[in-house]
Amino acid sequence: MSELTRMTWQETRAAGRSAIAVLPIGSQEQHAGHLPMGTDTMLAEAVTDAALARLGGDPEVVRLPALPFGHSPHHLFAAAVSLRASTLQAVLDDLLDSLAASGYRRVLIVNGHGGNDEIMRLAVKQYVLRADVALAACSYFSLGDGQSPGHAGMFETSLMLAAHPDLVRTPEPRPVVDPPPLFSDSPYPGLTVERHGEWARAGGTTDDAAAATAAHGAELLAGRSAALAEAIRAFDRSTRDSHASTEGAR
Amino acid sequence: MSELTRMTWQETRAAGRSAIAVLPIGSQEQHAGHLPMGTDTMLAEAVTDAALARLGGDPEVVRLPALPFGHSPHHLFAAAVSLRASTLQAVLDDLLDSLAASGYRRVLIVNGHGGNDEIMRLAVKQYVLRADVALAACSYFSLGDGQSPGHAGMFETSLMLAAHPDLVRTPEPRPVVDPPPLFSDSPYPGLTVERHGEWARAGGTTDDAAAATAAHGAELLAGRSAALAEAIRAFDRSTRDSHASTEGAR
Amino acid sequence: MSELTRMTWQETRAAGRSAIAVLPIGSQEQHAGHLPMGTDTMLAEAVTDAALARLGGDPEVVRLPALPFGHSPHHLFAAAVSLRASTLQAVLDDLLDSLAASGYRRVLIVNGHGGNDEIMRLAVKQYVLRADVALAACSYFSLGDGQSPGHAGMFETSLMLAAHPDLVRTPEPRPVVDPPPLFSDSPYPGLTVERHGEWARAGGTTDDAAAATAAHGAELLAGRSAALAEAIRAFDRSTRDSHASTEGAR
Amino acid sequence: MSELTRMTWQETRAAGRSAIAVLPIGSQEQHAGHLPMGTDTMLAEAVTDAALARLGGDPEVVRLPALPFGHSPHHLFAAAVSLRASTLQAVLDDLLDSLAASGYRRVLIVNGHGGNDEIMRLAVKQYVLRADVALAACSYFSLGDGQSPGHAGMFETSLMLAAHPDLVRTPEPRPVVDPPPLFSDSPYPGLTVERHGEWARAGGTTDDAAAATAAHGAELLAGRSAALAEAIRAFDRSTRDSHASTEGAR
Amino acid sequence: MSELTRMTWQETRAAGRSAIAVLPIGSQEQHAGHLPMGTDTMLAEAVTDAALARLGGDPEVVRLPALPFGHSPHHLFAAAVSLRASTLQAVLDDLLDSLAASGYRRVLIVNGHGGNDEIMRLAVKQYVLRADVALAACSYFSLGDGQSPGHAGMFETSLMLAAHPDLVRTPEPRPVVDPPPLFSDSPYPGLTVERHGEWARAGGTTDDAAAATAAHGAELLAGRSAALAEAIRAFDRSTRDSHASTEGAR
Amino acid sequence: MSELTRMTWQETRAAGRSAIAVLPIGSQEQHAGHLPMGTDTMLAEAVTDAALARLGGDPEVVRLPALPFGHSPHHLFAAAVSLRASTLQAVLDDLLDSLAASGYRRVLIVNGHGGNDEIMRLAVKQYVLRADVALAACSYFSLGDGQSPGHAGMFETSLMLAAHPDLVRTPEPRPVVDPPPLFSDSPYPGLTVERHGEWARAGGTTDDAAAATAAHGAELLAGRSAALAEAIRAFDRSTRDSHASTEGAR
Repeated sequence: MSELTRMTWQETRAAGRSAIAVLPIGSQEQHAGHLPMGTDTMLAEAVTDAALARLGGDPEVVRLPALPFGHSPHHLFAAAVSLRASTLQAVLDDLLDSLAASGYRRVLIVNGHGGNDEIMRLAVKQYVLRADVALAACSYFSLGDGQSPGHAGMFETSLMLAAHPDLVRTPEPRPVVDPPPLFSDSPYPGLTVERHGEWARAGGTTDDAAAATAAHGAELLAGRSAALAEAIRAFDRSTRDSHASTEGAR
Repeated sequence: MSELTRMTWQETRAAGRSAIAVLPIGSQEQHAGHLPMGTDTMLAEAVTDAALARLGGDPEVVRLPALPFGHSPHHLFAAAVSLRASTLQAVLDDLLDSLAASGYRRVLIVNGHGGNDEIMRLAVKQYVLRADVALAACSYFSLGDGQSPGHAGMFETSLMLAAHPDLVRTPEPRPVVDPPPLFSDSPYPGLTVERHGEWARAGGTTDDAAAATAAHGAELLAGRSAALAEAIRAFDRSTRDSHASTEGAR
Repeated sequence: MSELTRMTWQETRAAGRSAIAVLPIGSQEQHAGHLPMGTDTMLAEAVTDAALARLGGDPEVVRLPALPFGHSPHHLFAAAVSLRASTLQAVLDDLLDSLAASGYRRVLIVNGHGGNDEIMRLAVKQYVLRADVALAACSYFSLGDGQSPGHAGMFETSLMLAAHPDLVRTPEPRPVVDPPPLFSDSPYPGLTVERHGEWARAGGTTDDAAAATAAHGAELLAGRSAALAEAIRAFDRSTRDSHASTEGAR
Repeated sequence: MSELTRMTWQETRAAGRSAIAVLPIGSQEQHAGHLPMGTDTMLAEAVTDAALARLGGDPEVVRLPALPFGHSPHHLFAAAVSLRASTLQAVLDDLLDSLAASGYRRVLIVNGHGGNDEIMRLAVKQYVLRADVALAACSYFSLGDGQSPGHAGMFETSLMLAAHPDLVRTPEPRPVVDPPPLFSDSPYPGLTVERHGEWARAGGTTDDAAAATAAHGAELLAGRSAALAEAIRAFDRSTRDSHASTEGAR
Repeated sequence: MSELTRMTWQETRAAGRSAIAVLPIGSQEQHAGHLPMGTDTMLAEAVTDAALARLGGDPEVVRLPALPFGHSPHHLFAAAVSLRASTLQAVLDDLLDSLAASGYRRVLIVNGHGGNDEIMRLAVKQYVLRADVALAACSYFSLGDGQSPGHAGMFETSLMLAAHPDLVRTPEPRPVVDPPPLFSDSPYPGLTVERHGEWARAGGTTDDAAAATAAHGAELLAGRSAALAEAIRAFDRSTRDSHASTEGAR
Repeated sequence: MSELTRMTWQETRAAGRSAIAVLPIGSQEQHAGHLPMGTDTMLAEAVTDAALARLGGDPEVVRLPALPFGHSPHHLFAAAVSLRASTLQAVLDDLLDSLAASGYRRVLIVNGHGGNDEIMRLAVKQYVLRADVALAACSYFSLGDGQSPGHAGMFETSLMLAAHPDLVRTPEPRPVVDPPPLFSDSPYPGLTVERHGEWARAGGTTDDAAAATAAHGAELLAGRSAALAEAIRAFDRSTRDSHASTEGAR
C-alpha cells in the first residue's frame, strides 16, 4: 500500500497508470453514549487498511486520506458535524475528477456510513459518464451479503472494541421504542420508508449493544477486511484491461 | 383511486388529510429494437394502476400523473430523452414540497427505471428532514425480493407483451458481449462497479428477450402489482398515525 | 403524427433528421371549483393533438409525452403541485439537450399554462446559443392574436366542456373583487405589475365562467388547433433548410 | 426625483415607506458600426430621467443607479460584455430583496434591452411570492403599444441622435439578408422562433438606420418618457394602498 | 482613456489586442449619517479616472462602466442594496469571460469597497485558470501600503470632501463603543475575527470623521491615483508579452 | 485538548457552551520532488497540535479532524487532488452550520494552504451573518507578520524536516525562471496579479529549498505554534462574553 499523502507528485502521477486509488469516507456523528463521533470514519479506515494489508500490494493500490466528514443530517439533533448531500456530491465529484485528470483510470470508494451510501453510488455513476474510467463503490458493512448491520449497536460496538477499545464506553441499555423505528424495520422489503424525527424518537440506535465483545469484533473485522480484499481483487480483474476493452466501444 | 389531474383543488386539499399520494416515475430511453422508448413509464403506470385497483380504495390513494422523463444519461448514446441527476432531484423535491404544503403527510414514489433509483431514495431521505411527513419510495421491479431483473430483456419484454402487446416488436437475438458487461454481473456482491461506455459496448440490453411471453408477463404483472399493493398497505399501517407518533419526539 | 413514447430508439433517432419534435407542457393547479387540476395539461394536449391531426403528417412531427407539471407558485395557496422556476428551466434545458444530442434540429414547445410562458421562451433562447438548432415556443392560448384569455373563466371552461365535459362541474358565481386584481387588468399596457397575495385575494379566477358552453368550446378548440397547425407549418417553412442556411454564418 | 446613490442611508430608509424605487437596466453590446456599446443603458436612463422629470416628484420616486450590464449572449460574437441569464436573475433578485429588507414596498424596473425582458419579468413574478410587495417591470420601448421597435436601426439611432448625438457615427447601409432573420420577422404571431447563429448571419441589426433623424428621436424620446410617466402614475394609483389591501387576503 | 460604453463594438474588439480593460466596482451602502450610499462607487471611479488621466493613454486602457452594486450583507441592517457573494462572483466571472471572448488578454478590477475584496481576488484567481489571460485586482485604498483605512471615517470623508463636497453632510460624533468592534481592531495580526451583529453594535463606522478636510482629501486622492497609475504601469510591464511568455509553458 | 472524533455526542454538545472549535484545513498537491502531497495538511496539523499543547486546555478547545483536501486548481497540472472553490465554500459552510446548530459559539479555522485563504476568510464572513457566533480564521504561515513564506521552498522544507523528516527527499536545485513568476513577486504591493499557466512555467516552487534544515524548521515550528497559541488566546479574550455583548445590539 502507498499513501497518497506521503507520496511526491511524481510518484502519485506514475502510480495512476496501473494502481487503484482507494478513498475511505466516513462521518462525525452521534453513536449513542458509548461510541465516539468518528466511529464510521475509524471503521472505514480500519477495514480498508486491514484489506490493503491482506492484499500485500497485489493489485497495486494508492490509499487516499479519509474524508472524515459525511452526510448526517438525520443526526444533527445530536451534535453531528455534517455535509449536505449536494456538498458531499461535489466533494466526491471533485476528487474523482482530480484523479482522472492525473491519469488514474480506476478508483474505489470505501464507505463507513449509511447516510453516504446513495450519494457515493450516484457519484460514481455520474462521473463514469464523463471520463474513460472504471469506478467502484461499496459500504464496508454491506459487502458480500448486502446486510445493513445497524447503527451504534452490536455490530459497530464489537468492531470498535476490536479496533479502538480505548474509545468505547459502557453502553446504556437501549430504551424500548414503540412502534419500532421505521429505519430498522422496513414495513416491506424493497420499500424505503422515512419518517420525520424518527432517529430522535428512537434514541439514535438501531439495536442493543450490550452483548458486543472484542472477540466478536475481531471476527467481524477479519470478515469485513477479507471481503473488501476480495472485492478489490474482483474489481482489479474485471477492469485491469479497462482502457483496452472500452476502446472498441467508442 | 382518485386521479389528481381530474380532481378539483378543493378535493385535492381535502384528500391530503388522510390519503397517500402516489407518484409513478419512468423514463424515455432505448429498450433495444423491440420495445418502445416509454417502456419504463408505461410499466410503472401499469403496475401502479393494477395495485391501486387491487386496493379498491383502502387505503385511500391520490394518484398523480406520471413523470414521463427520467435520468438516463447512460442511454444518451441511443436517443434517450433524459433529465440530469440534479434536475430529477429538483423535480422530486418540488413535487414533495408542493404536496406537503397542501397538507399531504404521506407520499409514495413508484419507479420504473433503474437509473432513477438512488436519486428517488435520496430525494425522500432529504425531504423528510424538512417537513413532518412520512415518505416511501420503491422500484416496482425490485419490491419484495430486491432483484434487479434486467433491461429490455426477458422481464420487461414479457411485461410489455402483457400490458402493451401492440408496442412490442420481435426481439433480435442478443449479441455475445465478452467480457460480460459490468452492470449485469457485478464482480462482487455489494460492490457497485461502473465503466465508461459499458452500455454502448453491450448493445443496450442485459439479457436475451427471445423467451419472453405474454403469459409470463401476465404472471409478472400480477406478482408485481400484488407486491406493490402489499407495500402500500404496509406503508399505510406503519404511518397511519404518523402525525401523532412523531409529536412526542419533538 | 408519431409518439416518441411508442417508438423504438432507432425510429426516434431516424426521425430526428427531418421531423419537428413537439413537447406539450402544462400544470397541475387550481382551476376554481369547477375545473380539474390538470386543465392546462389536458388543453395543451388536446390542442396539440388536434393540430397534429390537421397536419396529417406534413410536416413530419414526433410528439413527446406532455410534461404534466408546471411552474405554479402563485397557486400554492390552493393545492398546486408546482415546479420552481429553476427546476422547470432545467427540465426544458435537459429535454432540448437530449433531443439535440439525438440529432433533432427542430423542436417546438406548446404550452398550456401562463406561468410557464417566460420560462419556456427563455429556455429556447438560451439553448439555441449552445447548439446548431432552430427552436420554437408558444402558448396555445395566445397564438395568433397575443390575447391572454384568462384562467378558469369563460375561455378554459368552454374548452374543457368541449374536450373533457365529464370533468367540468357547475361553476360558482365569481365573487366581486375590489379593486380588481392586478393580473387581469394591468394598469398600463406593456407594464407587468405583480402584487403579493393577489391570486388568493381574487379567489383564483380572472373572469366569470357562467356563460361557457361546449359549443363555444368546440369553436375555440377548432380555432386554436388551426392556429397551431399554421404555426407549425410556418416554423417548418422558415427552418426546413435550417442546417444549410446557418452554415455560412459560422 | 431622489438618487439613491446620493442619499444617506437614513434618507434611503425613510423614503421606502412611500416612494417607488426605480431601477434602470441596460446592456453593453454591439449596436452596428454607428452606435456605442452602452446604447441600451443610456436610453433606459434617458427615458427614465425624462419621465421622472415629468412627474416632478409626484409620486415620490427613488432612482437607483443603472445596472450597466445585461444579458447579451446572442451578441457575444461581436464583443458584448454580457451576464448569463442566471447571473442577471440573481442580481435582480438580490436588489429586490435588499430593497424589500429596507422597507420598500414598491419597485419598478425599467429595461432598455430586449434580451433582458423575460428575465426581468420573471424576476418580479418570482420575488413577489416571497415578500409583501408590489413590483412592476417594463421595457421602455414596448410600453403602451407592445411594439418591438428593433435593434440598432431607425428607432434606436433616432433616439441616440436626440439623446447623445456626439456618440452617433454615420450608419452603413444594412446588407440584404436572405432569408430575412427569424428574430425580426416571426413566421407566425405569438410564436417565438430562435435559430442558432441568426444575429451573426444578419449582421447585427434589425432594420436600416439611414432615415434616422434627431428630430424623430426627440419625438420618440418625448413619447417614450410620457408613456413611462403615465405607467408610473398608474402603478402608483393601483398600489398606493398596497399594504392595506393585501392584509385581508392573508 | 477610452470608455467602453461610448465605443462601437469594432473599436471594442480592436482595442482588446493590446489594451488593459479596467473595471471599477463599488457598493451602495450606509456610510453613517454624513456620506451618501454610493460613496464606495464614487471613490473607486474618482481614483480610477484620476489614475487614467495621469497615464495619458500609456499604457492603453479601456475603461468599463462601474458596477455600482457590491457585496454588503453586513450593512443590510442599514438600507444597503447588496449582492450576495455568489452573485458578485458570477457577475465578475461573466464580465471576465466576455472580455476574454472578445480578445482581451489583460483586465484589472479596481475596487472601492472592503466587502468585495476577497470575492474580487478569488474571481481573478479562478478565471485565470480557464483562459490564457493575465488578470489583476486591487482595492484602491490598500494599494501600496496594504492599510485598511476605515469605513465612513476620516479617510473616506476627506476623500469625499475633495471629490464630491456637495454630497457630504456634517458628521455626527462617533459614539463610544466598548469593547471596540472586532473589525477595526483585530485581536491578533493575521487573524480574521468576525462577530455577528458587530457593525450594528458599532454604529456603522470605524473611526471618527470630525477631523476630515477637503485639503487632506485632495492629498489622499492624489496619492491613491498616483499609486494606481503606478500599479497599472507595473501590471503592463509584467504582462506586456503575456501571450508569448506563457506559450512555452503549455 | 479534546478531539471531536474521539468524543461522544454528549461530550461534543456539552463542550460547545464554552469551548472554541478548531478546524485544520490543508491540501493534497505537488510540493516539488522532495516534499509529499500532504505537506500543507501535515503542517497545519503539526502547528495546531503544538499550539494546543502550549495552551494546555486554557482556553478550552475541541479539535476537529483536519480536512485533508483543499482548493488547488493551479496545481492540477501536477497531480493535485483538489476541491473546486464552490465545493470548499460549501464544505466550510456546512461544518460551521453544524457546529452552530450543536451550540458552538466560537470556531477557528487554521489553514495550511495559500489557495484556501480567501475562501476560508470569505466563509467565516458569510456565516457570521447567519448565526449569533464569533468566528476566526488564519493561515498558520502568515499569522503575526502577514508574510507569505513560499511554496515547497526554504520555509516548508525546513518545517517538514522538523515535523516529518522521514518524508523529505533531497531537493533538486530550483530552475532559473525568467521573468520571475508573478505569484512570488507581485509587480506592485497590494496588487494581485495572476497569469495563466504561471505555476507550470515556474516549475511549481517559489524559492530554493537547498538551505533548509531541521534546526531552522524546529525554530519555525516553535514560532508558528507560539503565534497560533497567542492568536487563540486573543480570540478567546475578545469573544469570551460574545453572547452577552451582542445581545444589546439586536
